[in-house]
Amino acid sequence: MIVDFTKLDRAFTPKCLVVVGGNPHWLWLRDQKNFQGKLYSVQVNPETIKDIEAAGITNFTSVRDVPEPIDLVIVSAPRKAAVDVLKDCIAADVAAAHYFTAGFSETGEEEGIEIERQLKEIADAANFHLIGPNCMGIYNPKISLGQIVWDNSGPFSPVGIISQSGTHTTTLGQRAHLQGISIRKAVSFGNGIVLDSSDYLEYFAYDSEIEVIGMYLEGVRDGKKFTKILKEVAARKPVVIWKGGRSKEGERAISSHTGSLAVSNDIWDAAVRQCGAISVSTMEELVDTIKALLYFPPVRGTRVGIAGGSGGQSVAIADGFASAGLISPTLSGESYRELSTFLTLIGGGYRNPIDTGSQPRNKIPQIMEVLDRDDNIDNLVLLTGARWGMTETPKIDIETMADIKQKSSKPVMAIVAYSTPEEMQGSMDAMMLFQEKGVPAFPTIERCAKALKNAYDYYSFKG
Amino acid sequence: MIVDFTKLDRAFTPKCLVVVGGNPHWLWLRDQKNFQGKLYSVQVNPETIKDIEAAGITNFTSVRDVPEPIDLVIVSAPRKAAVDVLKDCIAADVAAAHYFTAGFSETGEEEGIEIERQLKEIADAANFHLIGPNCMGIYNPKISLGQIVWDNSGPFSPVGIISQSGTHTTTLGQRAHLQGISIRKAVSFGNGIVLDSSDYLEYFAYDSEIEVIGMYLEGVRDGKKFTKILKEVAARKPVVIWKGGRSKEGERAISSHTGSLAVSNDIWDAAVRQCGAISVSTMEELVDTIKALLYFPPVRGTRVGIAGGSGGQSVAIADGFASAGLISPTLSGESYRELSTFLTLIGGGYRNPIDTGSQPRNKIPQIMEVLDRDDNIDNLVLLTGARWGMTETPKIDIETMADIKQKSSKPVMAIVAYSTPEEMQGSMDAMMLFQEKGVPAFPTIERCAKALKNAYDYYSFKG
Repeated sequence: MIVDFTKLDRAFTPKCLVVVGGNPHWLWLRDQKNFQGKLYSVQVNPETIKDIEAAGITNFTSVRDVPEPIDLVIVSAPRKAAVDVLKDCIAADVAAAHYFTAGFSETGEEEGIEIERQLKEIADAANFHLIGPNCMGIYNPKISLGQIVWDNSGPFSPVGIISQSGTHTTTLGQRAHLQGISIRKAVSFGNGIVLDSSDYLEYFAYDSEIEVIGMYLEGVRDGKKFTKILKEVAARKPVVIWKGGRSKEGERAISSHTGSLAVSNDIWDAAVRQCGAISVSTMEELVDTIKALLYFPPVRGTRVGIAGGSGGQSVAIADGFASAGLISPTLSGESYRELSTFLTLIGGGYRNPIDTGSQPRNKIPQIMEVLDRDDNIDNLVLLTGARWGMTETPKIDIETMADIKQKSSKPVMAIVAYSTPEEMQGSMDAMMLFQEKGVPAFPTIERCAKALKNAYDYYSFKG
Repeated sequence: MIVDFTKLDRAFTPKCLVVVGGNPHWLWLRDQKNFQGKLYSVQVNPETIKDIEAAGITNFTSVRDVPEPIDLVIVSAPRKAAVDVLKDCIAADVAAAHYFTAGFSETGEEEGIEIERQLKEIADAANFHLIGPNCMGIYNPKISLGQIVWDNSGPFSPVGIISQSGTHTTTLGQRAHLQGISIRKAVSFGNGIVLDSSDYLEYFAYDSEIEVIGMYLEGVRDGKKFTKILKEVAARKPVVIWKGGRSKEGERAISSHTGSLAVSNDIWDAAVRQCGAISVSTMEELVDTIKALLYFPPVRGTRVGIAGGSGGQSVAIADGFASAGLISPTLSGESYRELSTFLTLIGGGYRNPIDTGSQPRNKIPQIMEVLDRDDNIDNLVLLTGARWGMTETPKIDIETMADIKQKSSKPVMAIVAYSTPEEMQGSMDAMMLFQEKGVPAFPTIERCAKALKNAYDYYSFKG
């Protein structure tokens, strides 16, 4: 297979889209109703055709009959028609086809394995760009292509997602959006029998709309090829990889999901790190790390200066950052001298984390400036949010961080905690306000700490 | 110090409560306005006295003047009055005094250290039951005593909390309440110079209203005494301990918070485990583990049978349980034969986790029954909730688990996931519904897995 990026370009930004099959509810076709381009149906069931035509969509009974160049075909026909549809796509010189259709090698059944083998053989022989099967294919929200569940009105974040799981791609898109990251492009590639993770990775590397790449993988078909390409791509832009099947049981679940071969965790993590990419172990960590990479300048150290919490919290904060491998060191003598000029002594609490429990919030700008000047501190963290019984984050906290973001060359960030649904809404609103000012915000200490550490590891490797 | 449990009883369930000091806003007194018992003020400032009397509360200028037996005194007077108030309490034969007043050894200041030394010396000599200083004291929501922030209308869960941090006690009370656990009694004991963690632990061990004890500790003064008592108590009822200051930085934060000496993590964890108690490392894990212990029958194995998820999720589910040390094994041949009679093959997905992605939810009761009969499975888990784009959990899921809870001797539980604030509300509502039926529910796979594993470890040790 020689990957033709112009064909992938056409697949990701099609002008002409055809949906094949889907009975009796033609869901895939329905879901493309806002697609910004030409949309055709291919369907043979007379009843379904009637409905489709009634909805104003032109139907053909074969891909070959579509009277213009086709950029992408979405196949939701039954498994038994899969090979014929592929032959039609090749004959019609379609740029790429996404097979939503499932029931192949992932079932472990002989028939499914055999049909998948045929699909691969035929596609390979024709150098045909087949996406999947057993996947959700391409998501391009800007043109309303794919099963978009996040906002497609923009603005978009320069993030590309490559995923072996459709459910995870959808959920990831939603969760990232809730965190203020609107994914620009994504692909769910399922069994990846023709185009594999490496191919999409290389494609996104050269896509100027993508600055950070996130991946969900269950395994790789050609480890050598993958690591070679990963190394090249990671040198150009950050790649964050969540690998599913980190446990023996997860591996077993993988084999019945996409039929991938499993790799041991340690080997995987080492390989990813040696390529200069970032290995994460949950979806949350994937989203948070992407956010950190989007917002932070290069992270140059592991030492954090933290203000905004109080009392027993300071202990949990220090523990939380330490568990990610970060340090909250004592400040310089000069910093303590400065702090003592405007902070009241409460329980000896102005070490680091700086206990601001009963201090008015308007002391925090001064604290941040002290932390910014202190050579013992690489990163500035503000704790705020509903943990203190508020559903709204104090405006002054957002102004403080917006201001220090302007002045400081150090990474600055906010943690906006919550307990209740009401506070969660307040926390999410505040996170958006922080992020509008260029300050990434995270809902917990642990999530902030992991994201920061991952960004640090990335920049350390890059040097 | 010889602890007199009748005096602690009076302190936890006072009939006569006196609040000393608090200028100019007498916050502690105000906050006891719903206290169900006799409430008096001790205050010397004439202006403040006027306000207090205007609010209908009788004021005296000394504890010695209160004309009836006092069960508990809450001291919020300034540090410089601390010793005199103590002398008054002893003279008036008060059962116990809670010192909210801070500014002692935790400041590292000579003056504070010296006053604390005097307090301890005088209290010890009189065998006086002093709680604190530098703490929030006793919480008894049933009689509206203390800084109660969770519901005080009941019903209450048989849970007692012992905590070195007031902030954590308050937050823990709120978070536990949001999780459907209404803490029955709590004590925040701060510097613990007279009554220490061990004393409260022993007291709760004999309190018939308490079945599970949760602790937040930053250190212990007398390790030998503590482990001896912990061992005795843990043999009677489960004790879950969150230790703050697990990192070097956390330890430093501790020394400026409550002045406790730090212990290394490994030694601590080993000691706690050898006593038959449970060591946890975050507040979340503390709440979740308490919940598991309240709801589960003795947990006898690490093997979980899981249904309700789909596709790539199954991998994350298996990984999530495995990361806590739990196993999602393959089922027996008999189970697979049974499942095949009513489940459609989707991506070969009916291993374990059993992929129920496109199965109707009404298949789940049958799946749970198969899992219940299977000797390879010790625990039954249902995945449900907003992850599947719903804000409401299907009623059938709640009925299914209520039903299997009745039939099965295995621990049963639900995971009700969410992403948005709206879904969070739905998830929390569903968790309450599950729990009304005796089925503990958790918001994430990881939290469920850790809680289950902690409960398993507890019962394994007990044998």
